[in-house]
Amino acid sequence: MPTEEERPVVLIHRIPSLKQPLASLSERFTLLDPLLHSADSTHSFLSRHASSVRAILCLGPSPLTSDTLSLLPALEIVVGSTAGIDHVDLQECRRRGILVTNAGNAFSEDGADYVVGLLVDVLRRVSSIDRFVRNGLWPDHGAYPLGSTLGGKRVGIVGLGSIGSEVAKRLVPFGCSIAYTSRKKKPGVSYPFYANVSGLAADSDVLIVCCALTEETHHMINKDVMTALGKEGVIINVGRGALIDEKELVHFLVRGELGGAGLDVFEDEPHVPKELLTLDNVVLSPHIAVLTAESFAALEQVVIGNLEAFFSNKPLLSPVKLE
Amino acid sequence: MPTEEERPVVLIHRIPSLKQPLASLSERFTLLDPLLHSADSTHSFLSRHASSVRAILCLGPSPLTSDTLSLLPALEIVVGSTAGIDHVDLQECRRRGILVTNAGNAFSEDGADYVVGLLVDVLRRVSSIDRFVRNGLWPDHGAYPLGSTLGGKRVGIVGLGSIGSEVAKRLVPFGCSIAYTSRKKKPGVSYPFYANVSGLAADSDVLIVCCALTEETHHMINKDVMTALGKEGVIINVGRGALIDEKELVHFLVRGELGGAGLDVFEDEPHVPKELLTLDNVVLSPHIAVLTAESFAALEQVVIGNLEAFFSNKPLLSPVKLE
Repeated sequence: MPTEEERPVVLIHRIPSLKQPLASLSERFTLLDPLLHSADSTHSFLSRHASSVRAILCLGPSPLTSDTLSLLPALEIVVGSTAGIDHVDLQECRRRGILVTNAGNAFSEDGADYVVGLLVDVLRRVSSIDRFVRNGLWPDHGAYPLGSTLGGKRVGIVGLGSIGSEVAKRLVPFGCSIAYTSRKKKPGVSYPFYANVSGLAADSDVLIVCCALTEETHHMINKDVMTALGKEGVIINVGRGALIDEKELVHFLVRGELGGAGLDVFEDEPHVPKELLTLDNVVLSPHIAVLTAESFAALEQVVIGNLEAFFSNKPLLSPVKLE
Repeated sequence: MPTEEERPVVLIHRIPSLKQPLASLSERFTLLDPLLHSADSTHSFLSRHASSVRAILCLGPSPLTSDTLSLLPALEIVVGSTAGIDHVDLQECRRRGILVTNAGNAFSEDGADYVVGLLVDVLRRVSSIDRFVRNGLWPDHGAYPLGSTLGGKRVGIVGLGSIGSEVAKRLVPFGCSIAYTSRKKKPGVSYPFYANVSGLAADSDVLIVCCALTEETHHMINKDVMTALGKEGVIINVGRGALIDEKELVHFLVRGELGGAGLDVFEDEPHVPKELLTLDNVVLSPHIAVLTAESFAALEQVVIGNLEAFFSNKPLLSPVKLE
């Protein structure tokens, strides 16, 4: 362990509600957390420390704007703690040559597990059947409407990144067939590739949305895609809420023009459209698909690894390509 | 298709609440359903038709007792429509040399899918998180308690039959390690075998209960097994309620001496112990793990196949070994 004087300085950037334990980080780095250390405003705190700050750790999806970045002229790296980093002004980072890292594979497996959980839940109605039993309806109502089997379902993965690849691996033994769309065809991947999401939707029973949110992917799951997916179709979204035109999604679900949805993310979190709260073919969760005790520990290792690599001029563990 | 006169006679045996569509069966067989065709009692209906009945189709878990069997001196086969056939007096069947068949593999895949759904649900709290969101708690309560990852979990399968084998296949890509117990070691299976369930429980984080209910397996998951599994341990039961000492299970769960449970079956269905209805680490379902529109269609094929094989003296598709 470095002595206190030797520890490189890392600025913590977070929204107030995000309180993440950072014990093993603070053994290695001098952490500056404006929300903990400062009686004055974040802005003035930043102004005073700005010159010494080469690295910033962005916790969760805390928005990191060009305004904040402009207060840090010495900044060289933004270490992210999420898989998607759409909350960081990447254009400004690219312009200034600031490096950016993400959670790497820390969340891939737990995210993929949750996707499978949501899919089985929507198709087989696990949560809604649990409510049925808890409400004491079993003795009176007898049989519950039958769910639909996973075997033979055509699953279209939107974004075959680290989570999407793990989802595919898990769903093959269920007898699902896999296809995908992404910016470009992945070398060495044998699943059929679709150049656009509408084509994929037309040939799929299920869409798994797990790509990054960018200007290009904003509302990519729109009315046309939902129409192509069809009224038995199921959408699972663990990416970002704004990947889907949420207003349209609600319309499609309410009018029975989609079979169901498993949604971990929403356009205006923590706000969930109230129309969804009463639908039995929808499973809702509060942006926790990738979060477990174990994935947080894995994340900590990735964050520490990236910071140590940066401060010792070694290759970063999980750099984000800024295009 | 055989003409009406040529169709072999099959007696339908069912409890009144079980109304299964049997269209493709009635094209091939003359179905006698005492509950449909008879104004008088089942008993007298059976007495009058008894001599012509060589085959009986037992729908769902309708109890088929030695009393009923004794009314059918010509009976040669009981065609079951369930995976487990503990509701049929098998001892009496063996004594009289009556053949018995079950659902074969018709339910294996859907049953296994549901097991995985229940396991992800219990470990990652899918249903309870869905309730949390539906109750509008996300904006106020913020973060939800973290679930536990599937990767690295040691899964013990109690009964490596058709469902258990499919469960194992599905859980390997999640990073779970698999072991099992059954009456005897399965040839050609590489998962570690345990001769008894207590040993398996001691070395497992999760027990999947999916074996047949017999005198030997009644309450096999008892206090000692639950103690061996430990307070983070999870039990999934899609076999029969009476495989577990339910009273003990409730005590363990209420006292926090087990991590959680996913229960599709109960000792006194449709009665669910009321203590379970308020627990967030429990997922409940009304004995529907194997039921989908698709599995019913597959079942129909197995039932027809068994009956046709019987009436044409060919090998049965899914005979049950009566030991």
